[in-house]
Amino acid sequence: MLEVPAAQKLILDYISKQGCGGQKQSVAYREAGGYIVAEDTVAKDDLPPFDASIKDGYAVIAADGAGKRHVVGERSAGSPGKGCSPLKAGHCYRINTGAPIPQGADSVVQVEDTELLKGEKGEEVEINILKAPKIGQDIRVKGIDIRKGSTILSEGNLIGPPELGLLASVGVTNVTVYKKPVIHLLSTGNELEEPEAHVLKPGCIRDSNRSVISSILSENGFPCVDRGICRDDPDLLLASLSSNLACCDVIISTGSVSMGDKDYLKEILVADLGATIHFGRVNMKPGKPTTFATTKDHKLIFCLPGNPVSAMVTCHLFVLPALKAFVRSAHPFPSVIKARLPSTMTLDPERPEYHRVSLQQDLTGDHLIAYSTGHQLSSKLLSCKACNGFAILLKGTDKKPKLEKDSLVDVFLTKYLY
Amino acid sequence: MLEVPAAQKLILDYISKQGCGGQKQSVAYREAGGYIVAEDTVAKDDLPPFDASIKDGYAVIAADGAGKRHVVGERSAGSPGKGCSPLKAGHCYRINTGAPIPQGADSVVQVEDTELLKGEKGEEVEINILKAPKIGQDIRVKGIDIRKGSTILSEGNLIGPPELGLLASVGVTNVTVYKKPVIHLLSTGNELEEPEAHVLKPGCIRDSNRSVISSILSENGFPCVDRGICRDDPDLLLASLSSNLACCDVIISTGSVSMGDKDYLKEILVADLGATIHFGRVNMKPGKPTTFATTKDHKLIFCLPGNPVSAMVTCHLFVLPALKAFVRSAHPFPSVIKARLPSTMTLDPERPEYHRVSLQQDLTGDHLIAYSTGHQLSSKLLSCKACNGFAILLKGTDKKPKLEKDSLVDVFLTKYLY
Repeated sequence: MLEVPAAQKLILDYISKQGCGGQKQSVAYREAGGYIVAEDTVAKDDLPPFDASIKDGYAVIAADGAGKRHVVGERSAGSPGKGCSPLKAGHCYRINTGAPIPQGADSVVQVEDTELLKGEKGEEVEINILKAPKIGQDIRVKGIDIRKGSTILSEGNLIGPPELGLLASVGVTNVTVYKKPVIHLLSTGNELEEPEAHVLKPGCIRDSNRSVISSILSENGFPCVDRGICRDDPDLLLASLSSNLACCDVIISTGSVSMGDKDYLKEILVADLGATIHFGRVNMKPGKPTTFATTKDHKLIFCLPGNPVSAMVTCHLFVLPALKAFVRSAHPFPSVIKARLPSTMTLDPERPEYHRVSLQQDLTGDHLIAYSTGHQLSSKLLSCKACNGFAILLKGTDKKPKLEKDSLVDVFLTKYLY
Repeated sequence: MLEVPAAQKLILDYISKQGCGGQKQSVAYREAGGYIVAEDTVAKDDLPPFDASIKDGYAVIAADGAGKRHVVGERSAGSPGKGCSPLKAGHCYRINTGAPIPQGADSVVQVEDTELLKGEKGEEVEINILKAPKIGQDIRVKGIDIRKGSTILSEGNLIGPPELGLLASVGVTNVTVYKKPVIHLLSTGNELEEPEAHVLKPGCIRDSNRSVISSILSENGFPCVDRGICRDDPDLLLASLSSNLACCDVIISTGSVSMGDKDYLKEILVADLGATIHFGRVNMKPGKPTTFATTKDHKLIFCLPGNPVSAMVTCHLFVLPALKAFVRSAHPFPSVIKARLPSTMTLDPERPEYHRVSLQQDLTGDHLIAYSTGHQLSSKLLSCKACNGFAILLKGTDKKPKLEKDSLVDVFLTKYLY
């Protein structure tokens, strides 16, 4: 039985060795949020494209020092402004933030460091500069933010808000990114009904796994196709898997991987579809029956346990990192952070546990506090409410059956920390 | 000039006192991700709706102890199964995970703890139980996960993947949530062109602020309407503000709030629109000119600075918390976490600084490491690349002009930690 890190490594190694994913496509930058950059992206222009004022004030010649200046015109952002002849000694231009520095000027004095001496018909004629200006003062030099031809985004960068802003600011309106996988999601089980079922048939429950998994994937930028519920029937399962494999890169299923006589999935994968099962058990709680298989043409198949909590935990630990590796993310795993336990925590004596916690801020201490979300029964989805991480707990031993209050635990983040 | 926490408090107090937002609507649960629950949601059924087996194995009478059992039928998940008469002493049913416990049985023995003694025509006839079963063993009692009538989601809960799963599992397919605000986003400035502009006009730059802000809002579950670029002209600005205010709850603008003679925004808000400016300067770097105003009918107006970095930082610090308060989030602010500085950091001598950092995991230490993203010029969007937080730095003083290497700083999180 594999340990979790070994199982994760096996999946990522397979993706890397077999070259799953990694295909490129061009997308409009407005649609590029959440994609990973596939080719270095270069600035088409300098930013700013001209020497620009950082302040509202006056463009001057620094050598003129403090004292009187004759106001000969103005330069406002986006317009050539009135009076564009080169600046002469003793003269200045009124200028505002973002406006191009007029020829001959080498310094900007902010309006707060000046006083108006003389105006005529609402126009400034003469001002006094209170403080001797320095050369280059309050000037954003052409290209200081971004140099023309420089790399603004590199292969592997995740495109988020600032990256979109960078693309916009240099006018790169199409960007080459890694294609996202086509993901098909299905649940298996004779007992499952759609959540919309008003009255449950005897022996039946509503399927929650597709809701949870599609939402996790969507939050992480991976849309998926909901392929419904498949019954525990070998022919139906084979038909479903075959038709899905024909048009997707990744299948995620839940259920049908335990020890039951209706758990046909693995047999069908191997015997009928010629797939390879890389692992079918992982030493963890919850999630032990997690199965990872691949087809001859390198499609990825994740058969997650049917229990809602197990499905959620294993989706975070195995599926998401695989999808991120598929699109060549430099960070397929979220950060593991240290958090403090507010009370003692008994360790499971059989398996390492991924204990659902709600990380909360501690106004007095140096670490977040990891509150257990309650009873960790693997069917109990209530234990995942407000969960934003899994505390990674080692198996308990006679020597160390529990973790003490205030000890630090590693927490695998699954959500924003709010 | 207000400090940042005071400015944040002022905004949230206004929203709370004036009752901005807080309107309710019903949404289909499949569309409910990212919404805040407005009314406690109650389970329609027990989960499981019947006593169910946790394992694949045999349903037995515990009092029979270890030893032989006659297999009289089976119970599989989702079907009534063959043979439904109450279980008699010495008999057992074959059962699989999730199947209802047959009448008379009070324990489940997993298949691993049994051996087959006799089969006929592929049917099991007699088995041996290796270990004396206990009453209730491996049975999920009806309602153990969720009790019918119990509250599964409470007012104020954010609906994420597990919450969607909870709704699905109890068949609540419509949920009452808080309405999201209608948000209009515009940029102001004569120098701005659309990112699609192939060749820039002299003195012009491409607008990146709407790309950055709409993406931040979208990542946080708040779609917005892009209302384009408005020129620095009092009549055009007034017309734009009026038409936007007529059909939105929140306006976010960038630019036109500095000291320039073209910075008309505040004047128009007060003189023409009768708005109240609650603050027009905040003691922070970047973001000093941030302005918060409200109209008589309590619409919220955020006038952010035009510099890309300032706009991004102030969107996180002021706008997002306001939007979250509008939908009655219990957590309008993200957690502030402590991170370690990998090198000394000079403090700004004039204002508290929100220094962009990239938080990264430290495999040896107890804290994340906060790497500066480089030169913090407020126009330099490259300094926001890969940024996932702002280190909150106090103003430097003669006594404390810098923070030492390895000291811990507070970091305001802006993104997933990957």
